[in-house]
Amino acid sequence: MNLKEEALKLHKDSKGKLAVKSKVNVNTKEDLSLVYTPGVAEVCREIANNPKAVYDYTMKSNSVAVVTDGSAVLGLGNIGAEASLPVMEGKSVLFKELANIDAFPICIKNQNDDEIINIVKNIAPAFGGINLEDIAAPRCFKIEEKLQNIGIPVMHDDQHGTAIVVLAALLNAAKVTGKHIEELKVVVNGVGAAGTAITKLLLCIGIDKKICTSVKEIVLCDSKGIVYEGRPDLNEIKKALAKITNGSKRGGMLKDALKGADVFIGVSKGNLLTADDLKVMNKDPIVFAMANPTPEIMPDEASKVAAIVGTGRSDFPNQINNSLAFPGVFRGALDSKAVKINNEMKIAAATAIANCVNPTKDNILPYTLDKNVVKRVAEAVAKTAKETGVCRE
Amino acid sequence: MNLKEEALKLHKDSKGKLAVKSKVNVNTKEDLSLVYTPGVAEVCREIANNPKAVYDYTMKSNSVAVVTDGSAVLGLGNIGAEASLPVMEGKSVLFKELANIDAFPICIKNQNDDEIINIVKNIAPAFGGINLEDIAAPRCFKIEEKLQNIGIPVMHDDQHGTAIVVLAALLNAAKVTGKHIEELKVVVNGVGAAGTAITKLLLCIGIDKKICTSVKEIVLCDSKGIVYEGRPDLNEIKKALAKITNGSKRGGMLKDALKGADVFIGVSKGNLLTADDLKVMNKDPIVFAMANPTPEIMPDEASKVAAIVGTGRSDFPNQINNSLAFPGVFRGALDSKAVKINNEMKIAAATAIANCVNPTKDNILPYTLDKNVVKRVAEAVAKTAKETGVCRE
Repeated sequence: MNLKEEALKLHKDSKGKLAVKSKVNVNTKEDLSLVYTPGVAEVCREIANNPKAVYDYTMKSNSVAVVTDGSAVLGLGNIGAEASLPVMEGKSVLFKELANIDAFPICIKNQNDDEIINIVKNIAPAFGGINLEDIAAPRCFKIEEKLQNIGIPVMHDDQHGTAIVVLAALLNAAKVTGKHIEELKVVVNGVGAAGTAITKLLLCIGIDKKICTSVKEIVLCDSKGIVYEGRPDLNEIKKALAKITNGSKRGGMLKDALKGADVFIGVSKGNLLTADDLKVMNKDPIVFAMANPTPEIMPDEASKVAAIVGTGRSDFPNQINNSLAFPGVFRGALDSKAVKINNEMKIAAATAIANCVNPTKDNILPYTLDKNVVKRVAEAVAKTAKETGVCRE
Repeated sequence: MNLKEEALKLHKDSKGKLAVKSKVNVNTKEDLSLVYTPGVAEVCREIANNPKAVYDYTMKSNSVAVVTDGSAVLGLGNIGAEASLPVMEGKSVLFKELANIDAFPICIKNQNDDEIINIVKNIAPAFGGINLEDIAAPRCFKIEEKLQNIGIPVMHDDQHGTAIVVLAALLNAAKVTGKHIEELKVVVNGVGAAGTAITKLLLCIGIDKKICTSVKEIVLCDSKGIVYEGRPDLNEIKKALAKITNGSKRGGMLKDALKGADVFIGVSKGNLLTADDLKVMNKDPIVFAMANPTPEIMPDEASKVAAIVGTGRSDFPNQINNSLAFPGVFRGALDSKAVKINNEMKIAAATAIANCVNPTKDNILPYTLDKNVVKRVAEAVAKTAKETGVCRE
């Protein structure tokens, strides 16, 4: 069987991937009188009298909604709520298997920003966190922003999960190549959810050390070339990004942007670059070509010039995959009773991921299914949440 | 420990009652490539091309949302979404333990009808059915009605679960007392969710036999006495019910209604009646005093006059509890690919429940945790769904 046949068979045989289970016994009338009526009424009353008690007596303390509108699913685009469900189940499975979090898919059959915001706010009571997933840019930015004050952590994983792992990879790639983070000139190709979040995170790396450091410069490119202030076709998001990137206001195309750059980060589409294109970069270039399934440049080609090559794929070295981040980030946020996930927590997560390996050229990141990573990320995130004062208690 | 202490301890020790679990292995990169990217994309594509396939490849075929707005939780009233969560988790646990259905709580922090309808419609893609729970009357009627055409079965359990079990109990109580269903004069006290649904169901019992039979007469009472056409203070729901009940247009109070009645069904509040009040009923009266936790009349008192006494409580004989109905009803609806739950299916469920016992005075209903009941109810419901043509295929 090929991958397609195998994947279809697995999903059909198991009728999906996620189930619920009871954590309590219901074998006798006595069990029933505690789990359900009349005993449960006492628990309800306790929470009605003391709303915070919902975290002590219910699943809320360990549950996360995996929320999508099906508008930007993997590389498949706007396939809708139903067709996105296998991904949301898969994500929920990873939450459970890697971080013991009880995640459940909420696939919303509506792609209006305000409706999605309203629905998520209204179903939040049973959840301790919200993982936004596969919601198209630029809608994802507003939706996430408007949900930052609902009292539980809300994170759009396509943005920040990716950004955290890219930062982790970059920290170790810099170490291996002997470059200093603060001196890196970075080109980010692709200004969607991931490209935007990567850019923002790389510009505030230092805040966990209470000093404001960042990479030296970021130049963003989209399909029309370099993003610069005043470019006539920029949307609001790109206008804002143009103000904090590309300080020298360069114009031109991607290949122009690469001149003198140390790092290429691709979150765009496959087969954009050749080894020759990389020759204009600084010595020992770092290339993260993360387009899926086909990278912007294949690793064997990139390696002709680059010192470090990473992709999104599991069949090449240095897989840059957000499953290294989201389980530990949410575990840490839930454990620390955080009400949001701030930049400091993201940077702590990236640092923890980077510290899980002794980096070498072909091993800048730990293995995606390593539960030790989740533990270390969770601890770092929880500690930082407390230090930055975003916890309920 | 008393019940309160025990219930609080159980919920606190287990941090709630519900968890999720994975049905598939995620131990290797190969597993990951099937469960998540890149393999899962093939499954998404399959569903995008053929929307019905969502039932074959995802959890939808076995998942039910337990939806509440926390407005009428047990006997506790409008305690809100968070405080209702222990009940919704308990209900989900029963769905799992009794019917192997993967149910998940959706506690909505909004009590506007149209908002609730909109939210439920929009989150439906991941669910194969919707169990509405503890939503106050009269809002529950409109909400349920407006959700009847969303393509998956939607049932408000406080209405129909209760009505089904009451009908089951009545079928067997009539058998034990040698009365004929068609000749019964019934008083229903309480015109909320349960009273309304019980009334409607008892008026169309015969439709599963393709002949239209019902009990002979129903007289409804609310806190102001008998409901009759033209009573000046009736709301729209009660006006409609007045047209199909109390044919002789009697007025008066509950105690007047009981004159010449065969059956008293209480879904109201505790301590309303004495044995003396029952003496005006016909010979061998049937009394279902279901107010929780205190019945309208205690069983020892009622038994002085009544031939059969049932309550909602597990510590007396003849517990009339909707956990006898909802697991099998949804199991049958999911198994038969029903798109709704019609009266015929409810009557089939009631008949199946009644047929699970050889009824005697103190044993008109099966044991609430008997999984054999679920199986028989599910089979009857599925068969009827197919016969009445409400299945997807």
